[in-house]
Amino acid sequence: MTEAAPAPAGDDGRERLLRRIGAVRDLSKLLAAPLSPEDQQVQSMADTSPTKWHLAHTTWFFETFVLAPNVADYAPFHPDYGYLFNSYYEAVGPRHARPRRGLLTRPPLADVMRYRAHVDDALSRFVAETPAEVLNPLVPLIVLGLHHEQQHQELLLTDIKHALASQPLLPAYRGDLPVRPGKAPGLSWVEFMGGEHEIGADPASGFCFDNETPRRAVLTAPFELANRPVTNAEVLAFIEANGYAMPMLWLADGWAWVQAGGANLWGEAAPMYWRSDGDGWGEFTLGGLRALDPEAPASHLSYFEADAIARFMEARLPTEAEWELACALTYRPGANPNLMAAGLLHPGPPAGEASRGLYQILGDVWEWTASAYAPYPGFKAAPGAVGEYNGKFMVSQLVLKGGSCATPPGHIRPSYRNFFYPGQSWQFSGVRLARDSS
Amino acid sequence: MTEAAPAPAGDDGRERLLRRIGAVRDLSKLLAAPLSPEDQQVQSMADTSPTKWHLAHTTWFFETFVLAPNVADYAPFHPDYGYLFNSYYEAVGPRHARPRRGLLTRPPLADVMRYRAHVDDALSRFVAETPAEVLNPLVPLIVLGLHHEQQHQELLLTDIKHALASQPLLPAYRGDLPVRPGKAPGLSWVEFMGGEHEIGADPASGFCFDNETPRRAVLTAPFELANRPVTNAEVLAFIEANGYAMPMLWLADGWAWVQAGGANLWGEAAPMYWRSDGDGWGEFTLGGLRALDPEAPASHLSYFEADAIARFMEARLPTEAEWELACALTYRPGANPNLMAAGLLHPGPPAGEASRGLYQILGDVWEWTASAYAPYPGFKAAPGAVGEYNGKFMVSQLVLKGGSCATPPGHIRPSYRNFFYPGQSWQFSGVRLARDSS
Amino acid sequence: MTEAAPAPAGDDGRERLLRRIGAVRDLSKLLAAPLSPEDQQVQSMADTSPTKWHLAHTTWFFETFVLAPNVADYAPFHPDYGYLFNSYYEAVGPRHARPRRGLLTRPPLADVMRYRAHVDDALSRFVAETPAEVLNPLVPLIVLGLHHEQQHQELLLTDIKHALASQPLLPAYRGDLPVRPGKAPGLSWVEFMGGEHEIGADPASGFCFDNETPRRAVLTAPFELANRPVTNAEVLAFIEANGYAMPMLWLADGWAWVQAGGANLWGEAAPMYWRSDGDGWGEFTLGGLRALDPEAPASHLSYFEADAIARFMEARLPTEAEWELACALTYRPGANPNLMAAGLLHPGPPAGEASRGLYQILGDVWEWTASAYAPYPGFKAAPGAVGEYNGKFMVSQLVLKGGSCATPPGHIRPSYRNFFYPGQSWQFSGVRLARDSS
Amino acid sequence: MTEAAPAPAGDDGRERLLRRIGAVRDLSKLLAAPLSPEDQQVQSMADTSPTKWHLAHTTWFFETFVLAPNVADYAPFHPDYGYLFNSYYEAVGPRHARPRRGLLTRPPLADVMRYRAHVDDALSRFVAETPAEVLNPLVPLIVLGLHHEQQHQELLLTDIKHALASQPLLPAYRGDLPVRPGKAPGLSWVEFMGGEHEIGADPASGFCFDNETPRRAVLTAPFELANRPVTNAEVLAFIEANGYAMPMLWLADGWAWVQAGGANLWGEAAPMYWRSDGDGWGEFTLGGLRALDPEAPASHLSYFEADAIARFMEARLPTEAEWELACALTYRPGANPNLMAAGLLHPGPPAGEASRGLYQILGDVWEWTASAYAPYPGFKAAPGAVGEYNGKFMVSQLVLKGGSCATPPGHIRPSYRNFFYPGQSWQFSGVRLARDSS
Repeated sequence: MTEAAPAPAGDDGRERLLRRIGAVRDLSKLLAAPLSPEDQQVQSMADTSPTKWHLAHTTWFFETFVLAPNVADYAPFHPDYGYLFNSYYEAVGPRHARPRRGLLTRPPLADVMRYRAHVDDALSRFVAETPAEVLNPLVPLIVLGLHHEQQHQELLLTDIKHALASQPLLPAYRGDLPVRPGKAPGLSWVEFMGGEHEIGADPASGFCFDNETPRRAVLTAPFELANRPVTNAEVLAFIEANGYAMPMLWLADGWAWVQAGGANLWGEAAPMYWRSDGDGWGEFTLGGLRALDPEAPASHLSYFEADAIARFMEARLPTEAEWELACALTYRPGANPNLMAAGLLHPGPPAGEASRGLYQILGDVWEWTASAYAPYPGFKAAPGAVGEYNGKFMVSQLVLKGGSCATPPGHIRPSYRNFFYPGQSWQFSGVRLARDSS
Repeated sequence: MTEAAPAPAGDDGRERLLRRIGAVRDLSKLLAAPLSPEDQQVQSMADTSPTKWHLAHTTWFFETFVLAPNVADYAPFHPDYGYLFNSYYEAVGPRHARPRRGLLTRPPLADVMRYRAHVDDALSRFVAETPAEVLNPLVPLIVLGLHHEQQHQELLLTDIKHALASQPLLPAYRGDLPVRPGKAPGLSWVEFMGGEHEIGADPASGFCFDNETPRRAVLTAPFELANRPVTNAEVLAFIEANGYAMPMLWLADGWAWVQAGGANLWGEAAPMYWRSDGDGWGEFTLGGLRALDPEAPASHLSYFEADAIARFMEARLPTEAEWELACALTYRPGANPNLMAAGLLHPGPPAGEASRGLYQILGDVWEWTASAYAPYPGFKAAPGAVGEYNGKFMVSQLVLKGGSCATPPGHIRPSYRNFFYPGQSWQFSGVRLARDSS
Repeated sequence: MTEAAPAPAGDDGRERLLRRIGAVRDLSKLLAAPLSPEDQQVQSMADTSPTKWHLAHTTWFFETFVLAPNVADYAPFHPDYGYLFNSYYEAVGPRHARPRRGLLTRPPLADVMRYRAHVDDALSRFVAETPAEVLNPLVPLIVLGLHHEQQHQELLLTDIKHALASQPLLPAYRGDLPVRPGKAPGLSWVEFMGGEHEIGADPASGFCFDNETPRRAVLTAPFELANRPVTNAEVLAFIEANGYAMPMLWLADGWAWVQAGGANLWGEAAPMYWRSDGDGWGEFTLGGLRALDPEAPASHLSYFEADAIARFMEARLPTEAEWELACALTYRPGANPNLMAAGLLHPGPPAGEASRGLYQILGDVWEWTASAYAPYPGFKAAPGAVGEYNGKFMVSQLVLKGGSCATPPGHIRPSYRNFFYPGQSWQFSGVRLARDSS
Repeated sequence: MTEAAPAPAGDDGRERLLRRIGAVRDLSKLLAAPLSPEDQQVQSMADTSPTKWHLAHTTWFFETFVLAPNVADYAPFHPDYGYLFNSYYEAVGPRHARPRRGLLTRPPLADVMRYRAHVDDALSRFVAETPAEVLNPLVPLIVLGLHHEQQHQELLLTDIKHALASQPLLPAYRGDLPVRPGKAPGLSWVEFMGGEHEIGADPASGFCFDNETPRRAVLTAPFELANRPVTNAEVLAFIEANGYAMPMLWLADGWAWVQAGGANLWGEAAPMYWRSDGDGWGEFTLGGLRALDPEAPASHLSYFEADAIARFMEARLPTEAEWELACALTYRPGANPNLMAAGLLHPGPPAGEASRGLYQILGDVWEWTASAYAPYPGFKAAPGAVGEYNGKFMVSQLVLKGGSCATPPGHIRPSYRNFFYPGQSWQFSGVRLARDSS
């Protein structure tokens, strides 16, 4: 975690921080609101966590790292919650096994909501009342806790999507989600000059995670990126060309993954949530089962699928450096990408104009890169327990960029590095093609 | 299923049947009442089912086998419930995979309770209003449904016990369960003459399951049974003699089971729910974690453990025929065994007198026999879908006899055959020693 | 092990024993002779063992139980062989893990043959030179070792059959095995009166294993047995009626076994070694791949298959008591059953006459019974390490009777109890139908 | 595969090629010579292959890619060998499952040797007699086949090492391997300037695999490399500091790997082949079990272990670019590294002088880099079936550099990229520490 943003000076800074805390913490509750206590407890695979666990774990972060060490006589809400709601911090002690989170009927949801209130209250008082010279050095940690909670907000949505899709009744997360129709532009290529340029985050410019640093120069050859992500129509063409049955299109590990059943929840040779009926393809969404929109970006692709589809389309995946360079050059903060705040919670055709030829560089779907998730040269993990945040996952995963339709407000930037294993596809993960300049 | 009890004749018989239906159906709700909707949804291993599922499945039985085929224009409560709540009846069609029952957050508990009310209402009207000549042939099926529901009542308790024990907070099912202290009598032996005698059920004498028939003669040699089940104190002696580490005491499959970790939930070399702390042993019960009562019958033993403990004590397990003969000779219906109605929901020292020298032949713990669960000579499965009830499980399981502290009222008799795999121990299963007469 | 046969008295008895030892020990070498050192090392699944291991383990038995404790200054051939070639005797110490037997390229086959020669030599000298009063009490143990070796001779054949069938080239064990054509008689039923009769072995009548004792009375109802085992033609009818796809024909565990793939080596819905080509069915045999003989008894059936086929044919499996009674009544020692000595090493149509209506009660195929492998009333395991021989396997397995085309000379009798798990089918296991007398 | 070396012109070039073919092909036989047919058949885990399979598969390469398409009327040695000995070329058709290679007792070793002779003969004649204009375009493919065989020569050694170590008798591959004692120099650091420089192979300079190309510029920051690989003494210090029990030293996946048992063959918390006895540590080598040499480079480390040890020593792993730059700057072709030709077949203390401060940059142990195995910018897989050679493995693996004591002559260079999964350690894999320049 790195934070160089000015610490709150005087009441005004405190006030802004309190409002920000309130906004993030309230959003988590809002996201859980459509779900019953039963829904909030279920865990449908080892990769996912129950909603209730997300609500508690994000609270545990503030209690463990901010309140307990800094508030005199702070009384933890419950002595066992440290064990129950630690995710993976070895430095903090033992913890409840991840694949067993769905067994936790106790504490009940009501207790977890009281836990949230208890910690919110203590945190608000701490921020409001602590002398500036004590508070200010802790502000980066509090802000890290907010970004941490935002990550879990996206996971809350993708995890419950999987849990609902795993049930025969296929219930919607929300039955009232709007759908935005539209057309995908034809596939075209945008060229970028190579050369030496800088990527990564400069902590002086605002919040970033430790894994985005240090900013440094890289060399790239000239390259081209597709003007928009691969669409469902293009994945359909891959399926109709029998792409899931052609080993030459797949990485060896990817072919083994296909042979072992792939990710589709109903055993189809298709992306995770596609479901065929007599007439055609539907897709399970947070709004329930819908007809597949051929114009929307394909989502819930594993890296293996992304790579095979790119090969089928005679292209490749971009490297992280290529992607980040392109994003930094085309990204306009004023644009209105399809992030969580757009309210769709599903990828769709582009709503706005292209920026320098690129549509949807942020939002809609996370875009797989061909780059392994590895430390940047000179990377140093943050000191202390929060140093386990990012660094210890730096093997066997691939970087994804750009955020998705489930990414919370203010939680995406060109240097942001998301990372998953190549066989995972329960995130809103898609693909933007790249190719060498000819 | 076999039922020769007189069918209801006139209003009086109907009335009794309606009262019996009401009593059984209400008991299920009563058993679920201490549990939150979250508790009722969880499934902690593939062998168990969620409380909510038990409530729905027992209802599905009446809807599928009684109402749908016999009530004109019967409208199923929900078109998908047949798929969701079929347990294993292949003849009825496909079904939701057993190990995934815990994923069913939908339907919510409230809907399942409405489902129960809907079916109860339809069933009551059917019994009250159907002409006797139509109703009477169906009474055995309705009674089978009630016994089926009683089996699930016991499972509801043993399944939720496992689910609660699987959680770090170790919540009690009910915090107010009474404990009955007492002393176990010293171990002594009761001799039984061998010879030819009859075992099994005669359907003319009252309800029985198909697997208890036909009644027929068997030959036994003279034998002796222990006066009471093996106690916790005796299992403790086995542990202290290092019994879990001595392969010569175990069947080969049992030793492999021990080497693979056995059944104890916390990795101890001990029965499933024993838990050591600094000072001694506790035991998880439906009333929460308690100090181990050395005087109580040992429970939650697998067949492997029962067999090894018997060998350690220089005895053996009784055969089903021996056990049933002894029970029939000593069983007094007026006794007051520790069944569900006693309200303890845990085995304890004997409360009453011995009958011909035997304590606790019914109640407290199911007693493993050395007999494989196999068809009796001349066994015929019931016709139709309910014929899948018992016969198709007749391989690789062992018979247990006598009922337990969680067996509902009226649901046990000498010929009753319960059956589990040798490595299963989440039932209240214990052991009564036997030996050849010298 | 139980042996009441008169011990050798004088030189004549010694001579007979020495000849018997030589005959059994030489037969093992003869059986291995067609196989290369590479063939003799391979282990194609955890249930099987390499030929080389069988050759060594049977030798280890004599070294460990006869020579080491009784020959002064006996020098074990190699200090590590005790560890390598112990099968499952916990009392004798640790041992090489069973599924890893196929890794043992060392010792090479040549060393194992030297080991055999070393032990044969020591054993012969011991028998020839030991005073009668010392030798005679050990004769039963030596005879047990010979019967033990005979069991491994049959396993050697069934294990190498599996290993050869697991290879793409499908090599024959011996290319020169004769085939005996013929016709199976039509299916008819032979009736047996019930009543009280004795089964089990009387050790006073000759060698038997401990698990065949004590002989004792049982009661049976009248029953009928099929005149001959189920044929390949009848299994073909089961397959053509889609029997492998009909859950109502299967035990619940059997249906799960079918769903998990069954046993056929090439993924067919058929017995283990059946293999379809364009025109019809072939069957892998010790003589290589042959066209399926519809007249031969079906072999390599699991219990699950045997049970399902019996249900399909509106019959059932016999109990062990029924089978043994029928065998004892019809068995003529002078008959010429298709055992190993017949030289076919594959089941075939009956070569001789029926005895009281029954064909092939011994030989051709082991016949699954419906009886669990459990101790007979009053069973006592032999004292000492050899007491691990039979008793510790008495759970979860079923009894098979009658021997097969791979059973060595003198190694079968009516009371002989073979036992396997219900999903195992790499033995020559078939089925003879039974039904209640009407 | 890329090969720009001049094709043979005239008899002289043919002669050199024939000598080279003979030398490589003979070396494979020489490596197999100490092993019995039994040894050559065994497969001790799914990652490894039997010696016999290596001998056949390398032959299959020449038959399938060189002879069959180019020799008129070429008769394959055996019609099934294409199926048996294809490793992973999907384009060539189906193949025998990799984990089942150890089942192949047929063909026997003698047939495989005949297969080799048959193909060697055909290949020699083809090279000797084919007109230059036909032969010359095929020379790169033949040379690729030779390099392919060299890769399998190293695997032959590491695979048989695992197979021998998996046996209780711990036989040596060769009992006569020399040991070269010596001292490891103290750990010191060699500094390298960063900047822009080129890495990768230029095909115009000699043989390279496709994955080493295209050569291109990279940027690096200044860095330092350790003067020699981490030694056994340093790993011992890690063990004695309880490093295998400290989660903070490990990547998350690495810690899970440790918890699941790690790689040590005898369950120790140590590298794969370390084995403790009462007094200290031994190490299994191709020469048998030896006392651990604290001065030798540690080998058979997984990436997880390499990474944890580096963290423990307050350093990191080098990137591939750093390593390759350092190697190219210090590598002297005239040096005498500990490769296969040195005859030790085990890492040892450095025998020669440092080059610009670096010892053992080639040979002794493959050195894990922190770089994922991914395509170089502009990478194109070779056309045709041999294009499956390298590219399809480019996910989830890490690059290793520098060759080992088992690398054949002429088979290593600075740009050579070996690759394995992070949990694999049956290669001679070690670690050279790196750190940022301060």
